[in-house]
Amino acid sequence: MKNKTTLQEIANSTSGWLMGNGPEADVVFSCRIRLARNLKGFVFPPYAQPFVLKQTAEKILNSVRKSNYFRNARVINISELSPVEREFFLEKHLISLEFIKSEDYRFLVVEKREIISLMINEEDHFRLQSIFSGLQLQEAWQLINAVDDELERNLDYAFSPKWGYLTACPTNTGTGMRASCMLHLPGLVATQRINGVLRGISQLGLVARGLYGEGTTPQGDFFQISNQVTLGIKEEEIVDNVGKISRQAVEEEKKAREILFRKNKTELKDNIGRAYGLLANAYLISFEEAMDLLSKVRLGFSLNLLPKVKNIRVLNELLFLIAPAQIQIKEGKELSSFSRNELRAKIIREKLRE
Amino acid sequence: MKNKTTLQEIANSTSGWLMGNGPEADVVFSCRIRLARNLKGFVFPPYAQPFVLKQTAEKILNSVRKSNYFRNARVINISELSPVEREFFLEKHLISLEFIKSEDYRFLVVEKREIISLMINEEDHFRLQSIFSGLQLQEAWQLINAVDDELERNLDYAFSPKWGYLTACPTNTGTGMRASCMLHLPGLVATQRINGVLRGISQLGLVARGLYGEGTTPQGDFFQISNQVTLGIKEEEIVDNVGKISRQAVEEEKKAREILFRKNKTELKDNIGRAYGLLANAYLISFEEAMDLLSKVRLGFSLNLLPKVKNIRVLNELLFLIAPAQIQIKEGKELSSFSRNELRAKIIREKLRE
Repeated sequence: MKNKTTLQEIANSTSGWLMGNGPEADVVFSCRIRLARNLKGFVFPPYAQPFVLKQTAEKILNSVRKSNYFRNARVINISELSPVEREFFLEKHLISLEFIKSEDYRFLVVEKREIISLMINEEDHFRLQSIFSGLQLQEAWQLINAVDDELERNLDYAFSPKWGYLTACPTNTGTGMRASCMLHLPGLVATQRINGVLRGISQLGLVARGLYGEGTTPQGDFFQISNQVTLGIKEEEIVDNVGKISRQAVEEEKKAREILFRKNKTELKDNIGRAYGLLANAYLISFEEAMDLLSKVRLGFSLNLLPKVKNIRVLNELLFLIAPAQIQIKEGKELSSFSRNELRAKIIREKLRE
Repeated sequence: MKNKTTLQEIANSTSGWLMGNGPEADVVFSCRIRLARNLKGFVFPPYAQPFVLKQTAEKILNSVRKSNYFRNARVINISELSPVEREFFLEKHLISLEFIKSEDYRFLVVEKREIISLMINEEDHFRLQSIFSGLQLQEAWQLINAVDDELERNLDYAFSPKWGYLTACPTNTGTGMRASCMLHLPGLVATQRINGVLRGISQLGLVARGLYGEGTTPQGDFFQISNQVTLGIKEEEIVDNVGKISRQAVEEEKKAREILFRKNKTELKDNIGRAYGLLANAYLISFEEAMDLLSKVRLGFSLNLLPKVKNIRVLNELLFLIAPAQIQIKEGKELSSFSRNELRAKIIREKLRE
């Protein structure tokens, strides 16, 4: 692995948005905004020749280097990465499923805290994203808007006064924006109210997905809520809309937790205690089981049922550290499923003792 | 409950044979010898009128009171006990399933450490038993033999020079002795060698039963090995035979543990760690689940895989403290299954923290 040291450095540092210090952090894992942007006069990546991709990449990287926001950023040439290394960035929510399969002239630019990042030559020429801890969609919007303005100083965007920002896929045209909140809804799942809430969300024109975004199923009671419409609506309206509905989901989740706590406190404590006991004492654990148990422990922490867990940051970090590629990058080599399960259990035991 | 205080005292003290200080205590839970004795000239209890039972009880209690071995003994009138209270003594291995259903003039005599005890008017006029920690069948025999001699000074036993001690059921005639060892064989169970070992035991004329003796199925990997034949054989031979075969089973179990440890150490540690994690963190637990998990933890302790568990005594005590009637007697009232499960989990959590 050429990028071994850089990747291990990234693997050993904690993303700023995992700190769990944002508002409502025990329900809202994170909020994210991404903007799709393309350069005027260049073919969209899906149809572009390599020499075009090279040109757009150079132009964008040039603008990035002049940006204050990317002063401490790493530029990673995705094309040089092995499948496991690509998966590593996918698991960290820094690149998309689309990007993982990409060929030449694909770059990831990510500043040290991983709050702001940029994919070059994904479906669009670049996609800018900002992730914050907790319910901070406004804050994410303000930051990404400023970064976008700064990048635009040295780039000529493909923009139509009628349609707005032009994109490779029409579903992104207009604002080019997707705003999303990652919600942890174990209470709604346990009280079987989740389907009603998700139905309500889709009736409001939003969409709910799993932890790893598009094309993934919900895992560990995590649901990503995001806007579907990008056209004929202002950025502020999208942010406002996703923020409002997320806040409603937060309130519903809190009510559900309250009900669980009041009606089935012993069963709840048992369920959460057992999850903690397994995590703190297992020597082999799969990703799926660990996610499921961490979800329960995260609920337990938020209900003050687990005095042994000192802060939510440990749990947030763990939810990402246990993913298959994270373990392999940290270890510096590819590992069998058995070895990953063994190391995953070790990471969890040690982290819970912190 | 009339006997509430006495019973709670017994519930809160640890039987001498649970200390786990005998030889091979990590495989041999306990060794037990019981002698069936009847008084000359009195009908056997199953056919006796109450006035006969009263007479035999008086005679036996009279002899007991003169015995040095029973100086600190408690005399418990089983007839006065509620069903839960009777079950309490059954769970403690101090009375038999037969005795639990008995009517008037049934007594249990038990000295404080519970090493020596006596059931009056069970199937026979009395049954004397001695239980020791670990593989100490010889020691149990020497003690019970001395107690038997002492009791005989003031009692006239039903004895035939031809048949030996006469008993209500012919299967006990002769020595009136049953010698048994309670073995903990999780290694043989896990390596699926247990059936072969049990077959070998039965071919040698011995019988394997569950934790609660006759009529019970093995639970938590505990197997009681005992002699079937009581006639035409000397006491010493029975003791020698059961002792030798138990020692062989101990060696087989140790080999099985060695194999498990060598071949599947990580799976074993995981299995044991998880069992400990559940026991130390659950808030609701059934008797069956707790037995199963304690069995694993006991194996883990013996293989030095559980540094958190400081001694085997805690685990031995727990195996009895978690039984349904123990919990109810300790609490001083009858409890629902839910409450028992809740209290059981609490007892285990607290005990494991000791």
